[in-house]
Amino acid sequence: MVVGEIAEAVDLLVVGAGPAGYTAALHAARRGRDVTLVDRDGTDGVGGVCLRVGCIPSKALIELADLGARAAAAGLGLAAPDLGAFQARKRAIVAELTDGIRSMLGGADVRVLGGELRFTRPDQAVVRTPDGRAAFVEFRDVVLATGSRPTVLPGLVPDGQRVLDSTGALDLAELPAAVAVVGAGYIGVELGTALAKLGAAVTLVEAAGRVLPEIDAALVRPVARRLAQLGVAVLTGAAAGEHRDGLLHVRQGEQETAVKADVVIVAAGRVPNTDQLGLDRLGVTPGPDGRIPVAPDRTVRPHVAAIGDVSPGPALAHKGYAEAPVAVDALCGERVAFQPAAVPAVVFGDPEIATVGLTAAAARAEGLDPVVTTVPMAANGRALTLGAPHGTVQLVTEAGTGVVLGLHVAGPHASELVAAGTVAIEMGATALDLADTIHVHPTVSEQVQEAAKVAVRRAQAPRDSATRRIQ
Amino acid sequence: MVVGEIAEAVDLLVVGAGPAGYTAALHAARRGRDVTLVDRDGTDGVGGVCLRVGCIPSKALIELADLGARAAAAGLGLAAPDLGAFQARKRAIVAELTDGIRSMLGGADVRVLGGELRFTRPDQAVVRTPDGRAAFVEFRDVVLATGSRPTVLPGLVPDGQRVLDSTGALDLAELPAAVAVVGAGYIGVELGTALAKLGAAVTLVEAAGRVLPEIDAALVRPVARRLAQLGVAVLTGAAAGEHRDGLLHVRQGEQETAVKADVVIVAAGRVPNTDQLGLDRLGVTPGPDGRIPVAPDRTVRPHVAAIGDVSPGPALAHKGYAEAPVAVDALCGERVAFQPAAVPAVVFGDPEIATVGLTAAAARAEGLDPVVTTVPMAANGRALTLGAPHGTVQLVTEAGTGVVLGLHVAGPHASELVAAGTVAIEMGATALDLADTIHVHPTVSEQVQEAAKVAVRRAQAPRDSATRRIQ
Repeated sequence: MVVGEIAEAVDLLVVGAGPAGYTAALHAARRGRDVTLVDRDGTDGVGGVCLRVGCIPSKALIELADLGARAAAAGLGLAAPDLGAFQARKRAIVAELTDGIRSMLGGADVRVLGGELRFTRPDQAVVRTPDGRAAFVEFRDVVLATGSRPTVLPGLVPDGQRVLDSTGALDLAELPAAVAVVGAGYIGVELGTALAKLGAAVTLVEAAGRVLPEIDAALVRPVARRLAQLGVAVLTGAAAGEHRDGLLHVRQGEQETAVKADVVIVAAGRVPNTDQLGLDRLGVTPGPDGRIPVAPDRTVRPHVAAIGDVSPGPALAHKGYAEAPVAVDALCGERVAFQPAAVPAVVFGDPEIATVGLTAAAARAEGLDPVVTTVPMAANGRALTLGAPHGTVQLVTEAGTGVVLGLHVAGPHASELVAAGTVAIEMGATALDLADTIHVHPTVSEQVQEAAKVAVRRAQAPRDSATRRIQ
Repeated sequence: MVVGEIAEAVDLLVVGAGPAGYTAALHAARRGRDVTLVDRDGTDGVGGVCLRVGCIPSKALIELADLGARAAAAGLGLAAPDLGAFQARKRAIVAELTDGIRSMLGGADVRVLGGELRFTRPDQAVVRTPDGRAAFVEFRDVVLATGSRPTVLPGLVPDGQRVLDSTGALDLAELPAAVAVVGAGYIGVELGTALAKLGAAVTLVEAAGRVLPEIDAALVRPVARRLAQLGVAVLTGAAAGEHRDGLLHVRQGEQETAVKADVVIVAAGRVPNTDQLGLDRLGVTPGPDGRIPVAPDRTVRPHVAAIGDVSPGPALAHKGYAEAPVAVDALCGERVAFQPAAVPAVVFGDPEIATVGLTAAAARAEGLDPVVTTVPMAANGRALTLGAPHGTVQLVTEAGTGVVLGLHVAGPHASELVAAGTVAIEMGATALDLADTIHVHPTVSEQVQEAAKVAVRRAQAPRDSATRRIQ
């Protein structure tokens, strides 16, 4: 701190304008707090990684690629999708969404400051603006929501040309002929699938034994099959080395391979942005994984809360959205907690994988007695009409009670129909409840009801019936 | 009855092998009943109108047309979809699904008989097979599930060439240049939209004042806009007259128009197949609309039940599916009732419209005090990435309690995400429950949560907050 510098008093400070941060700012403003929102990129940063360079642009790319692939499969599509035109469309979508948020922030009188923020004291920070000035703010409460950034692998530092992170991959205005994607987690699989559909020769390089190693193998199987069908090469148990002369060197145990790759995309996870904030001055110590330990109400200590990718849990926008009002309410002195019964997650692969609640393994680890009911997507009429009868529904229920513990779906529109599973878990529904809930024919969601009917027959009702009984 | 003819004894007779009938047959067999399933078309009839010539083929056509339109809009599609190839694909889909059902019926030892059935006595019927023979069956219990057929308009009797019903429309192997669709209910709108996307010049002729007259105007608006964008002409308050020389004559009040139409598709509703069964001999009298009045357990009198399109309620496959086990259980002597909290319905237009539970008007008619919360689809990130940010979400809740009474969605994937609304209604969820349920970002289903959040702010919680409070 520059001696003599006078700090401006701020009521509630939010650091980071991504999904968690802007939601916290809006919620706090609605509660009557005087809110200052600081983002490295100022108003340009509104929407964060997710809206600007992450989930929204990636879904637009995935849709375009899928449309092209499906049109080609139906004998319709002759022209390959144009990534240049896609970039324009992507910018328009991002502008529309972020303009909407900027307008809400403006309407709520949230002040947005641009610059790198560093804490200088437990109640003070300095914001260095792009033009080199430093502004000091003294805050009553602070919400940390600085998000995360792609992990950088040594030897594969993104250069914006030959080595890209996921952000760079979504900025491609021309399709590379050959692409290696390092990391076959959800980001790697999503990007790899899309680029393969667009016509690139794609190789996935994964350290674990298979793609999407953190997801149940039965759900991943149709995705792996589709990758193979698209001609995507998958190297497992593989470590990426140097990239030179259009070749990515990959080591699998003793064996070394050179993978043709005009472009390497590094999708090897994300690290929380907690290392350059001067958190020690704030009196906050991140854990070994860089995340900030929080209480159930998302506070770290009085007047300090952390949400989104910097707090423990999955790095998902919708987790941040849900944490935001909890953190703000806590800072406003309320007794609250972030205790969702379930946080759903989706891989926008082909097919989509959506998962909510406990897997059988997780249920057993919690000391529960789970029953898993699986029905294939192949018999689903809607999936057939979509030309996509691939996938599976796994319903996890508690033995005896039939209470729904988890729903895990690989199949078309899985991302949308998992909401019914989340509602079921939040409401404490049983398999019998789901079996008795009429689902529209023909929809993919019928397969969830089908799983529930099978579960009821097998494990819950005394005999084969899913009809509603009169008391 | 031919004198001296000996009737074969049948334990449980099911008439009609559509969704309601085959489900009843399977359920009864599972309960240990000896089941005979009679369908006019025998084993070829398995799956009924819905699977063979209705919802499944129409969804396949709608998807193909939509794929073509979206590919063209994205600058990808150059070849027009080929209806000849579609017919082959349609047959393959239908065969796959009906083969599956036939195999289940076989596995359950359900005997399938082909022929026209007519009741001759309260416990007896004659089945006339295609080869002219008559078989008499004496049954203990009977489930009536003969379904419905398209309404025939005088002067526009389907001839398989120039005048088609919906079944004929789905059999088109070549695209007509100009099509008039008589009736802009859900079948007319679905077929009209698909044919327009395929490139036909389509005119919708509707007696009421607008398309989809039975659905809330706010939900229909985006569909009507899209029809206009596709160049579909809509004639409202219009009565179709004669079709000659490639012109359909239409009267609108005093005005007469001639609409260019190489083909006329009549989609003017459906009538239940209850008029040629000899129901009087069974001791059953249909109501004025041709439907059979049933008790809550779907029985008409002891030993006789009616389900599917021949029983009151919406003519929807999933209603029949749900009624089937209730009817069978009732005939087996159990005290059961078909009392779903909500029966969802979908129009597969562009965008899709899905509706479940009460509209505000219906809620008021029931003496409830509804609150309607509406949020547009335009702000939804996923809808934007799908290139389809058109539509609206209407959440109907009860004033004071916030209990979800209805969910009505126009938008992409509405057919799938309405399942969450049905589960919510079945479970007695409130807007606060839905607001607290974490929805995946980015999905269209987030817009339902958004509506719930708005509803909570406005009508349920003391002030602006959707966070979970600690007790």
